[in-house]
Amino acid sequence: MNKYWSELTKSLSPYEPGEQPQDRKYLKLNTNENPFPPSELVLNEIKESVTDSLRFYPDPDALKLKKAISTYYNIDTDSVFVGNGSDEVLAFSFMAFFKEKSAISFPNITYSFYPVYCNIFEIEFNTFSLNDTFEIDIDAIPAESGGIIFPNPNAPTGVYLGISKIEEMLLRFPNIVVVVDEAYIDFGGESCVNLTHKYHNLLVVQTFSKSRSLAGLRVGFSIGHPSLIQALNRVKNSFNSYPLDSLAIAGAVSAINDNSYFTYCCNQIVEAREFLANELTSLSFQVLPSKANFLFVKHSVLDASLIYSSLKENGILVRHFKNPDVSDYLRITVGKKEDMIILVKCLKSIIEAQRV
Amino acid sequence: MNKYWSELTKSLSPYEPGEQPQDRKYLKLNTNENPFPPSELVLNEIKESVTDSLRFYPDPDALKLKKAISTYYNIDTDSVFVGNGSDEVLAFSFMAFFKEKSAISFPNITYSFYPVYCNIFEIEFNTFSLNDTFEIDIDAIPAESGGIIFPNPNAPTGVYLGISKIEEMLLRFPNIVVVVDEAYIDFGGESCVNLTHKYHNLLVVQTFSKSRSLAGLRVGFSIGHPSLIQALNRVKNSFNSYPLDSLAIAGAVSAINDNSYFTYCCNQIVEAREFLANELTSLSFQVLPSKANFLFVKHSVLDASLIYSSLKENGILVRHFKNPDVSDYLRITVGKKEDMIILVKCLKSIIEAQRV
Repeated sequence: MNKYWSELTKSLSPYEPGEQPQDRKYLKLNTNENPFPPSELVLNEIKESVTDSLRFYPDPDALKLKKAISTYYNIDTDSVFVGNGSDEVLAFSFMAFFKEKSAISFPNITYSFYPVYCNIFEIEFNTFSLNDTFEIDIDAIPAESGGIIFPNPNAPTGVYLGISKIEEMLLRFPNIVVVVDEAYIDFGGESCVNLTHKYHNLLVVQTFSKSRSLAGLRVGFSIGHPSLIQALNRVKNSFNSYPLDSLAIAGAVSAINDNSYFTYCCNQIVEAREFLANELTSLSFQVLPSKANFLFVKHSVLDASLIYSSLKENGILVRHFKNPDVSDYLRITVGKKEDMIILVKCLKSIIEAQRV
Repeated sequence: MNKYWSELTKSLSPYEPGEQPQDRKYLKLNTNENPFPPSELVLNEIKESVTDSLRFYPDPDALKLKKAISTYYNIDTDSVFVGNGSDEVLAFSFMAFFKEKSAISFPNITYSFYPVYCNIFEIEFNTFSLNDTFEIDIDAIPAESGGIIFPNPNAPTGVYLGISKIEEMLLRFPNIVVVVDEAYIDFGGESCVNLTHKYHNLLVVQTFSKSRSLAGLRVGFSIGHPSLIQALNRVKNSFNSYPLDSLAIAGAVSAINDNSYFTYCCNQIVEAREFLANELTSLSFQVLPSKANFLFVKHSVLDASLIYSSLKENGILVRHFKNPDVSDYLRITVGKKEDMIILVKCLKSIIEAQRV
C-alpha cells in the first residue's frame, strides 16, 4: 500500500521522541523538561495575547522576538533566526549549510536526530569517537568534513566542551559551517554566542524548551553572522512563511525579558543536579560530569533496562536508549530537589530488592 | 559572503507572503484573513490552557485534534494528519509523494508556493493552462504526471471545480497522488473529503487560517487513506516531532467543535462576497465567479497597479501579483459587509478621479 510513497519516504528512519504515556501520572524525568513552570509574566502575557487578533497571520519575521533575543545577547537583530523549536531550526540548518557538501561530522554518541536529518535531506555523514571520558576530541574530527554539528553540553552525556576548545575547532575548520547546538547551555556552561562576531562560520542554536520552561510553546532560535541567517531565511521562506504563532512569539519575548526568574530556575536545577550526582555516586552509579539538566549514569552491577523498568513500575520515567553504544546507561532529567529525593529513595529500594 | 551556503540555498526563490506593513492601520483585504474574530469558545479554551503545563512538550501526535477532525468529517483518526499551518502540510506532502517522481503538474495560475516547494525539494514540474473561463481543464493535464496538486477553489482566482470533475481526474490518474488544497472550501464549495474512502491516492489539505479565523495560531491538516497519512508522519517525524504547540492544539479542537459560529461566519462572508461581486460588476470590473473568501477582478479601463496604489493610499490593502499572467488583476479579500461598502465607496472615488 505504499506505492504512492516517494523513494525518500520509503527510506526514512524517523526520530523517536521520549515516551509520553497517558495511562497514569508519572514523575517525568525522561524528556528533559524543566521542573519549574514558565514565569508568571510569560503566562500573563500569553493570556493577554489571546484576542480577536488571532484571526490575523503572525509577523512572518517575528521581529519582536528577534529584537528581544538580540538585546539579551547584545548582537544585531539580523544575526538572529527563530523557528518552531530548535528541531526546526536544526532541520533548516542542515538544508542551508550541509546539503551537497562533503560528508558532515558529528560525535558517535550524540543527539539522535542528526542522522535522521541527514537521511531526509540526503546528506552524507561520518561520526567521530568521543574520548574515554566521553569528551569531544577535536583531533578525531575528519579533516575533510563538509560541516560539523554537536550539542554543547553533549546529549545524552551532559559533558561540556569549553569555549577555548570550540575556538580551536573554528580555527581548524574555517571553510565549513560549525553548528553548536546549545539546547542545554544555560545549566552551567558558557555560551559561545560571542564567538559569532569573530567566526562567521559559527551557528549557535538554542531553545526555549529547557531552561525557559516552554517546551509546550515550540520556540527555538539561532545566532550567527547575518549571511548564515540569510541562508536560514531563504530555506524557511521556501518551506513555511509563518512557523511561529502569535502566542508563541508573545510568550517567548516575555520569557527572554524575565531574567531573574530564569536565573533562579537554572540555579535551582544546578543545585539539584549536584545533589543527585552525589547521591547516585554513593549508590554505585558511574555519573558523567554534566553541565546539562540531566545526568547520564551507569550502575556498577544492575542492568540499565532493569532499572528503567523498575522505575517505570514505580511511576518514574527516565530515558533508556536502545543504541548499543549507550544501552548500559540511563539518562535522568534533573527535577526539583524534592523529586530527586523521591527518585533516590526508589532507586535504593530497587537496588535492595535485587540484592535479596 | 555566501561561501557557506549549500548549492540548494543559493538556488532558492523563496515565497513572498502578502505585505504586513506596520506604518499605519489598514483595512486588510490582502491576505484572505477572516473578518470575524475566532469563536469566544476558542479564546476561552486557549486562555484556560495557558498553565504551568506549558513546561511539558505537547502531544507529538496531537491526538485530541485528530480525533476532533475525524469526528467532524466522520472518518477514522488514522486518516488525519495535522501540521503547522497548511503550508507545512503541503511541504511535507511534496516530500512524501512527489519527490523522485516524474514531473508533477499544477495549473499555470495557482498558489505561488507550489513552484517554491518544487525548488527546495528538487521536484520537476509542468504547469497546465486553465481554460478561457479560468477553470481547471482535466484534458490539459499531462498524461505522464508524477503527481497533481491544485487548490479548490483555485487561488488566486476563486474558481471552483465540482466534485464530479475531481472524481473524473482521480479515475484518469489512479497511479499518482492527487493533492486537493481546500484552503478556501468552506465558503461555498463542497469538500471532496468523502472521495478519500474510494480513492486512496487522494489527499485533501485544509487550514484553520481562513474559515475558522485562526491564521495567528498556525494549524493545518490533511485527510486521506491511512497509508498516505503514514507517509506524512514519516516525513514529519524526520523533520520536527512537535510542530503544533499545546495552545494551538487546544484552540483548534475548540474551533472544530463550535460549528454554529463557524457556519454563521461562513454564511456572512458568502453574503458579503455576492454583494461585493454585484457592486464591482456595476463599476465595470470583470469579476471571476468565486467560491472563496476573495474575488479576483479586473477593471475594464483602469490599471490594476494604479487601483492597488490608490487603495493603499486610502488605507485599504488588496493583493496585486507581479506575475504577468495575472498582473491585470487584483485579489480582494471579502470582509464584513460594512467593510465592503467602504471599499466600494473608495473604488468609486478612484474611478471618478481618473475620469476627470
